[in-house]
Amino acid sequence: MPAPLKVALLGCGVVGTQVARRLLEHAEELAPRVGTSLELVGIAVRDAAAPREGVTGTPLADLLTDDAESLVDGADVVVEVMGGIEPARSLILRAIEHGASVVTANKALLAQDGPTLYKAADAAGVDLYFEAAVAGAIPIVRPVRESLAGDQVQRVLGIVNGTTNYVLDRMATEGLELEQAVKEAQALGYAEADPTADVEGFDAAAKAAILASLAFHTRVSIDDVAREGITSVTAADVAWAKRTGHTIKLLAIAERNTSDDVAGIQVRVHPALVPDEHPLAGVRGAFNAVFVEAEAAGELMFYGRGAGGAPTASAVLGDLVSVARHRVLGGRGPVESSYAALPVLPADAARTRFQVRLDVDDRPGVLAQVAAALAEHDVSIEAVRQSADGRADGSGDGTDLARLLITTHAAPERALAATVAALTDLDVVRDVVSVLRVEGA
Amino acid sequence: MPAPLKVALLGCGVVGTQVARRLLEHAEELAPRVGTSLELVGIAVRDAAAPREGVTGTPLADLLTDDAESLVDGADVVVEVMGGIEPARSLILRAIEHGASVVTANKALLAQDGPTLYKAADAAGVDLYFEAAVAGAIPIVRPVRESLAGDQVQRVLGIVNGTTNYVLDRMATEGLELEQAVKEAQALGYAEADPTADVEGFDAAAKAAILASLAFHTRVSIDDVAREGITSVTAADVAWAKRTGHTIKLLAIAERNTSDDVAGIQVRVHPALVPDEHPLAGVRGAFNAVFVEAEAAGELMFYGRGAGGAPTASAVLGDLVSVARHRVLGGRGPVESSYAALPVLPADAARTRFQVRLDVDDRPGVLAQVAAALAEHDVSIEAVRQSADGRADGSGDGTDLARLLITTHAAPERALAATVAALTDLDVVRDVVSVLRVEGA
Repeated sequence: MPAPLKVALLGCGVVGTQVARRLLEHAEELAPRVGTSLELVGIAVRDAAAPREGVTGTPLADLLTDDAESLVDGADVVVEVMGGIEPARSLILRAIEHGASVVTANKALLAQDGPTLYKAADAAGVDLYFEAAVAGAIPIVRPVRESLAGDQVQRVLGIVNGTTNYVLDRMATEGLELEQAVKEAQALGYAEADPTADVEGFDAAAKAAILASLAFHTRVSIDDVAREGITSVTAADVAWAKRTGHTIKLLAIAERNTSDDVAGIQVRVHPALVPDEHPLAGVRGAFNAVFVEAEAAGELMFYGRGAGGAPTASAVLGDLVSVARHRVLGGRGPVESSYAALPVLPADAARTRFQVRLDVDDRPGVLAQVAAALAEHDVSIEAVRQSADGRADGSGDGTDLARLLITTHAAPERALAATVAALTDLDVVRDVVSVLRVEGA
Repeated sequence: MPAPLKVALLGCGVVGTQVARRLLEHAEELAPRVGTSLELVGIAVRDAAAPREGVTGTPLADLLTDDAESLVDGADVVVEVMGGIEPARSLILRAIEHGASVVTANKALLAQDGPTLYKAADAAGVDLYFEAAVAGAIPIVRPVRESLAGDQVQRVLGIVNGTTNYVLDRMATEGLELEQAVKEAQALGYAEADPTADVEGFDAAAKAAILASLAFHTRVSIDDVAREGITSVTAADVAWAKRTGHTIKLLAIAERNTSDDVAGIQVRVHPALVPDEHPLAGVRGAFNAVFVEAEAAGELMFYGRGAGGAPTASAVLGDLVSVARHRVLGGRGPVESSYAALPVLPADAARTRFQVRLDVDDRPGVLAQVAAALAEHDVSIEAVRQSADGRADGSGDGTDLARLLITTHAAPERALAATVAALTDLDVVRDVVSVLRVEGA
């Protein structure tokens, strides 16, 4: 067997600890899969002396170091699970310059500066693998960049943030308001003390950018992603969604523009109504799932745990075996594929179906006025549901209020914005209660 | 760009035609993904002069040849989609000896003689890829043999035969008997004129063997797979399954033995009751899905189209891009991994939960006798449901017949066989109506 490969681990949080433990505990299983043994030579942390749960008092403690540079310089493979932009970026680039292969779970860095990393790895002839950066344990990076390399991806719809899926699921099953559900998620450790990155969709947007880059062979950064979080979703929205056979999910969407006038792709994150028959509607709790539509393959879905120490470690270790095998047997994995260089279209170029809830005066002629306002902006109505005193919470006075639930055919985002403004101006419209996109129909 | 790679296609059925068409139509997209262009140099068929739908009168017709040997000898990559054992095996071995990489969709050949192919490919230093052999378009071979290479797979549960899933789905939704549902599947082209390979589970067994080999790093042939088809499943079974919150699915199962006394794996195909909450229960129509339980990753599911020309071509072309890239950039994909060499245990070593339906005399003391028969064979009862005149079809005379529905805890297959024999011998038992395994609980 060839000489052992030296593995340097950067970061020792929940994921790093699991990666390190599994490297030690499963060394005998991993060696024949790689073709040589993997030697964990050190774990870089900010403060090697600080006590760490699951590390202090175990053999891992002896591997801790706060000299990340020296650790990187002596490694064959560097595994980065520290997160954040710096010092992760500098350490990854340093590792690549020293000829090490890199496995990273760093979605923020890849979504912000992926091409720099790709370019450096390509110049050095080393691997850059990042399965764990999107949807945790779910194999999705490899399937999209390798298994579907002979197909044409048309659309990716992903539930890629477990925290918001948990929150929306609790709202749906227990009737909770967003704030209560977030508190529950925090108590269970699914949400951070500051839940902004999750509930405002930043985390999902980074993953959307990575998936879009791979699916469409085009550079997409997080700045290209139109982003809307779940903070405006109410218990009433969720209840109405259920009544109309839908489930509200925060989706990361990357799609080819199918209209004739503008060629390009559109990448966005927002809450959406998903029909209950759609496979994504059934994704419960903190699970993730990515639904892919490809020209030849048709509909595919990948489902599993999107976060957590052990699941993320599974993805990291799968990558580690691949890059280590290349060092033993020669060869390299896929490099950046951005030849298509499709234009990334602005948010208002998207065409989507919408569901609009309005509180209106309950008298004859109102629907005609509302319909006329939609028609004026070329927004075509698919269905209308009208109910007197339709407030979900029953708080209406029952005398002169009606609730209109309008589902549109696919319409340009910009036309809808104009329509909503026009509806708000109508005397008969008391309130535009909510506007939600419908996806996956 | 390096010289084009010569691609030889063996077989021009539904899959072959789609592979050939997409190779020609998407040549411009494929070249930058491979690093050079792919030149389809010929399509070997038995009779090049015979008329072929979708081929005759198209540019593909000029590529037909009945000299497969010469075609193989001049190729860089050979794509085998003819199926069957011979001449597929000889042609693949010939291609490997000539230094060509091979992509095959041939589950029967791999399940019967995979190690011979692996060994030849390894000796010649070429790739052997076969994503399309299991579950059509669904990326499952690559995720199991690469993405999960750093994890320990514990169990694989797969709906890997679309024909039987369609048949069982129609039985569940329309109340059809098996024979009617099979006829419907034949009319729609989902089932062959002779449906034996599907309904008797041979097709699923081949895929189970391939998945088990990859998941457990152990050689598993189709002869190691305990196999039971769906031919004994009745409309009444399906109706009773629904009443108890289950859906009947034909499952391909590969699992590590978790009991203490015998180390090894168990691979089997049989119809099973799947709880409605399980993700596999919702897999409708001719779709496939593979559910994987791994130590670190937890539960994963892969879902999509398991058959058909275009979906299978998607998997073939993904493999083709991978093996072609290796020829351009160097390196090789995974080789056979059979180091674990776990014993494949016989069918009666499996431990499963069962649901047994009995027609019994409707009088006091019957349940006690039945329970005693189970206890005598160490089969522990989880739940009993008793109903007078319980025939699903209402044909009982209502005077002295009761239906017992017994769900057991996990019990060894051999204990259950003995129990069923003992129950049949009881005077109070009129009929053991059905015995079905429960999986995924």
